[in-house]
Amino acid sequence: MVTETHFQKELERLKENLLKMASLVERVISDAVQSLIKRNSELAQRTIASDDAINDLELTIDEMCLKLLALRQPMAVDLRFITASMKIVTDLERMGDQAVNIAERALSLNQEPQLKPYIDLPRMAEITQSMVKDVLDAFVKQDSPLARSVCVRDDLVDGLNDQVFRELLTYMISDSKTIPRCVHLMIVSRCLERIADHATNIAEDVIFMVDARIIKHHAEEKKEGQG
Amino acid sequence: MVTETHFQKELERLKENLLKMASLVERVISDAVQSLIKRNSELAQRTIASDDAINDLELTIDEMCLKLLALRQPMAVDLRFITASMKIVTDLERMGDQAVNIAERALSLNQEPQLKPYIDLPRMAEITQSMVKDVLDAFVKQDSPLARSVCVRDDLVDGLNDQVFRELLTYMISDSKTIPRCVHLMIVSRCLERIADHATNIAEDVIFMVDARIIKHHAEEKKEGQG
Repeated sequence: MVTETHFQKELERLKENLLKMASLVERVISDAVQSLIKRNSELAQRTIASDDAINDLELTIDEMCLKLLALRQPMAVDLRFITASMKIVTDLERMGDQAVNIAERALSLNQEPQLKPYIDLPRMAEITQSMVKDVLDAFVKQDSPLARSVCVRDDLVDGLNDQVFRELLTYMISDSKTIPRCVHLMIVSRCLERIADHATNIAEDVIFMVDARIIKHHAEEKKEGQG
Repeated sequence: MVTETHFQKELERLKENLLKMASLVERVISDAVQSLIKRNSELAQRTIASDDAINDLELTIDEMCLKLLALRQPMAVDLRFITASMKIVTDLERMGDQAVNIAERALSLNQEPQLKPYIDLPRMAEITQSMVKDVLDAFVKQDSPLARSVCVRDDLVDGLNDQVFRELLTYMISDSKTIPRCVHLMIVSRCLERIADHATNIAEDVIFMVDARIIKHHAEEKKEGQG
């Protein structure tokens, strides 16, 4: 029983670290987008620097999982939880990379006059942040309805990304001087979309774990449903 | 001893499946780029459809790994190999998604006159394919010099991506009619760059496993070395 309790404690610590990493990632996304909107290059620099903390947490959590697997030899549910954790930290770390990418674009964009007031990008950022937060809560609490709500939000982000692309295309076509800035902004938009994709990947894993159903590759089912 | 041998056989089967998945991914990358270069929309359609086979293999390998972890309770080296396999299939599956993205862009681009002969994109595709092949060989054979050579090639792909971006920017600025096509091609270039990034992620894991050294977050060391 002592061992069992100890194992549960270690699982709790793992969960805490995952949530900590997720909240760090949320913050770098927010900071990266704020550095763009507020034209704050100093914040952009800090955002880029803070990626190290995320990378360190990835390694810490990975090692934690390996130790749990090696020493505790968990079965069934716990085994899936731990292996899923290892996949999730990879997603979180890559979200951090995308945020760094946004901050780097902000550094370039802040050196030129602002193209237009940003409206859709902050909205996209807000939604993706909420996705990161909720999907980790869903994972830790094994809450599949919450995970499903994350998948739904991914469609919103995709829609906004398309909208941003179309709008920027119009700018580029009407005034070629705007092209370099528009390309930077397209990349920012795509980074946010990629972050949302990572959150959706995690959400699908959670749903898979909880419902033991595969919606990951559900395209076929959709097709059949329509056919 | 019988159990041990059985375990080794299962590990061999895991390796075979990983190599099979990698060769499938190599092929969809090649097909996606060929569908663009040869303006073959039928090939693009087939490329998009073949993503299902990759998704199926991801699930198969994941299950295989979970079973090995649960039933065999492997230690040390084998444990790391199996958990790394689970991360690698995620990377491979996402490479497949990027190839599908390229094929979708090809479908759009094939409906308009070709912008210019493609030179850098096929080169990028060739290098990324070689990276996918070699990094899986490096993983299966635990060959860290080969993994390092994959990391080196990532710089080549990044360089080519920058070059393609700059060239397309020039096109866009000089003739606004080319902008939509240029944007599609920028995305193709970025997809190839992302595939190379996934291969590099795997390479870093291999080096980490083999050398038990962390080069993943080596930016700091680099900075210190320069400072």
